[in-house]
Amino acid sequence: MKSNNGVTLTEMGKRAKEASIELAKLPAENKNNALQKMATSLEESKDKILSANTKDVEAANKRGLKLALVDRLALDEPKLKEMARCLREVAELPDPVGSIVSTSMRPNGLMIGQMRVPLGVVGVIYESRPNVTSDAAGICIKSGNAIILRGGSDAIGSNLAIVEALKTALTDTGVPSDAIQIISSMERSIVEEFMQMRDYVDVLIPRGGADLIRTVVEKASIPVIETGTGNCHIYVEEDADLENAIRIVVNAKCQRPGTCNAAEKLLVNSKVAQSFLPRVISALRVEGVEVRADEQTSRIVPDVKPATEKDWYTEYLDLIIGVKVVRDMDEAIAHVNKYGSKHSESILTANFEKAMRFIREVDAAAVYWNASTRFTDGNQFGLGAEIGVSTQKLHVRGPMSVQHLTTTKYFILGKGQIRE
Amino acid sequence: MKSNNGVTLTEMGKRAKEASIELAKLPAENKNNALQKMATSLEESKDKILSANTKDVEAANKRGLKLALVDRLALDEPKLKEMARCLREVAELPDPVGSIVSTSMRPNGLMIGQMRVPLGVVGVIYESRPNVTSDAAGICIKSGNAIILRGGSDAIGSNLAIVEALKTALTDTGVPSDAIQIISSMERSIVEEFMQMRDYVDVLIPRGGADLIRTVVEKASIPVIETGTGNCHIYVEEDADLENAIRIVVNAKCQRPGTCNAAEKLLVNSKVAQSFLPRVISALRVEGVEVRADEQTSRIVPDVKPATEKDWYTEYLDLIIGVKVVRDMDEAIAHVNKYGSKHSESILTANFEKAMRFIREVDAAAVYWNASTRFTDGNQFGLGAEIGVSTQKLHVRGPMSVQHLTTTKYFILGKGQIRE
Repeated sequence: MKSNNGVTLTEMGKRAKEASIELAKLPAENKNNALQKMATSLEESKDKILSANTKDVEAANKRGLKLALVDRLALDEPKLKEMARCLREVAELPDPVGSIVSTSMRPNGLMIGQMRVPLGVVGVIYESRPNVTSDAAGICIKSGNAIILRGGSDAIGSNLAIVEALKTALTDTGVPSDAIQIISSMERSIVEEFMQMRDYVDVLIPRGGADLIRTVVEKASIPVIETGTGNCHIYVEEDADLENAIRIVVNAKCQRPGTCNAAEKLLVNSKVAQSFLPRVISALRVEGVEVRADEQTSRIVPDVKPATEKDWYTEYLDLIIGVKVVRDMDEAIAHVNKYGSKHSESILTANFEKAMRFIREVDAAAVYWNASTRFTDGNQFGLGAEIGVSTQKLHVRGPMSVQHLTTTKYFILGKGQIRE
Repeated sequence: MKSNNGVTLTEMGKRAKEASIELAKLPAENKNNALQKMATSLEESKDKILSANTKDVEAANKRGLKLALVDRLALDEPKLKEMARCLREVAELPDPVGSIVSTSMRPNGLMIGQMRVPLGVVGVIYESRPNVTSDAAGICIKSGNAIILRGGSDAIGSNLAIVEALKTALTDTGVPSDAIQIISSMERSIVEEFMQMRDYVDVLIPRGGADLIRTVVEKASIPVIETGTGNCHIYVEEDADLENAIRIVVNAKCQRPGTCNAAEKLLVNSKVAQSFLPRVISALRVEGVEVRADEQTSRIVPDVKPATEKDWYTEYLDLIIGVKVVRDMDEAIAHVNKYGSKHSESILTANFEKAMRFIREVDAAAVYWNASTRFTDGNQFGLGAEIGVSTQKLHVRGPMSVQHLTTTKYFILGKGQIRE
């Protein structure tokens, strides 16, 4: 099957695997040098990349793509500078490869250790954000992995121009050019084939909306790291500082509503519903937020839209919030565990014991006490750049950064030991 | 769909999820007490379990099941005692749940930590070994996870009797009885449904032959931890101590040939082929091993069977070994990385630098220097009981024990922080 200027997917896989073997042996300084050059090359290829992007945006507008999506697709000089800055930041991070995670000496004299090694080849399937192309490539190179990218058709021109700039930069760095590859064919059958390439791809990371992630999870036979969907809740307990609560809810909802760690739901203990709801809803409305609420809320604030069962499951990624009154913390925890997406959840309370119970019993990657959910992010957690936020329980949970694209290998040093 | 004495799979899943929430809150002492009682109950139910097992074995013999499989299926008093011993051993292991993995204070005053928590509900799909039923249940209870078992049809009577004994033991321990459940229906459609139960099952662990594992990996939409296939190699470098090499090869092949860490292939550097091959093959033949070899070997030891391309990929689990002469370490590494199953690989050499190169460049869960591959095992590595050996790179690589059935959860303690 032809996929990339006449190169088959299998051929791409083979090349990526070979490149990954070379890359795994490289010292940090080669990889960091490559990342610095990739950043410079992005800046130097500004005209090519922006003109390809302009064409993508025009075509998207012609097709009537939603404004929010066009916004994600569009690049400009500051955004390109930010992409270059990210690559330089990744170059500055410590290299996780080769570090020794554990050692022990067994009674029979075997020395057993664990060494951090790259995963091998990482596949990234994403939608319309061209910055993912360079961000993901940078994190993969740093962690010693080859990458095969498959972006959305809306951004194909931009992505090809970015990949060309990145690959050019690899000359004379020791990083093989095949360590970064992109699938240029937009046929659906190619993605299906890609998701089954267990012989060449070690892990698949889908980045995008809930539908994309569900498709990859259901169809891939390669191990997947699920990322991103965030139906995040803030629960206001009866003893919460209500002034603070208003600040936190407004921040979590409005500071950047299109992100996965933005709050989508507000749960309020019935004992403070009467005093808190009118104030918080009015503060949200000042920011242009649409409120969809349960019956109890509408009895207190009559002019809200009714929420449907579907609302409780929905990640709006928009200036909309679902509001519900709950009897107590039990009901709040049960609601979060039923409807949440296991991303980021927050309790606002003056009581440490209650906070710790919420933290223990809520099943999510990140559980907050008295803070906005907006902090779930590699940089905010002090991990450096991230390739996504994992909402699954295997391998990595929460922000996924350079060290999470590695695995360990046991090494066992003997002097002739056999098993008795 | 009916699956378990009239209980649907969905109902089983719901009950397991609820049980897992209760189980996650239990202190170590309740879980350890339950494990001790489970061990005692297995011993007390000896007659019931062994009589159910006798029926399974008779039926298997009637169907003409292979002797090696009947051997795995058959229980006797010592094997039952060993199953009870394993449960008591798991009770003695440290409890991983609740331990704090990391903490840090961010510049904005947020305290960020990671806490170890159970995965939730673990699904185990396995074949004819009834001891997996109690071993897997024990490791899951210890790590705070509910378990849904689906064993092979050959062992169904034995498995049901074992599960009954285990569940009876849970009375008055605080561990919910639904924390251990078994699918009793042997319809294939039930397994297919089971592998898609993402709402209720957090991870699937297949234990058994290569076909079973492939099916689960390809069909499951639940995250899978791949275990077990071991096409393990020993590479004898030109400077190896050849006397030692013979002991190690014979041990790795013959000490327990049916296990996944037994050696299946022997690669010999051409410089020592002439002196080493006749001696090692003769030592292997004393143990009854059949040798399948490449052309170069057959020129040195004429009476060996020729190996086919398929042989190089095959995990025999039997007294058979594939033997091949290689030019040098480059060819040895390339062969292992092409045909191996990423389980356990060993190099025999007097040279530390060569050993470290082999360790770095061979892609496997465990890479040995001057030792038998037979040590890849939770107990041998000092991890305690294991639920399998992971040959995948995500989440856990190598022997998988109690702590590997947990994940982490970020907790973030604030005092009103919002994102600027």
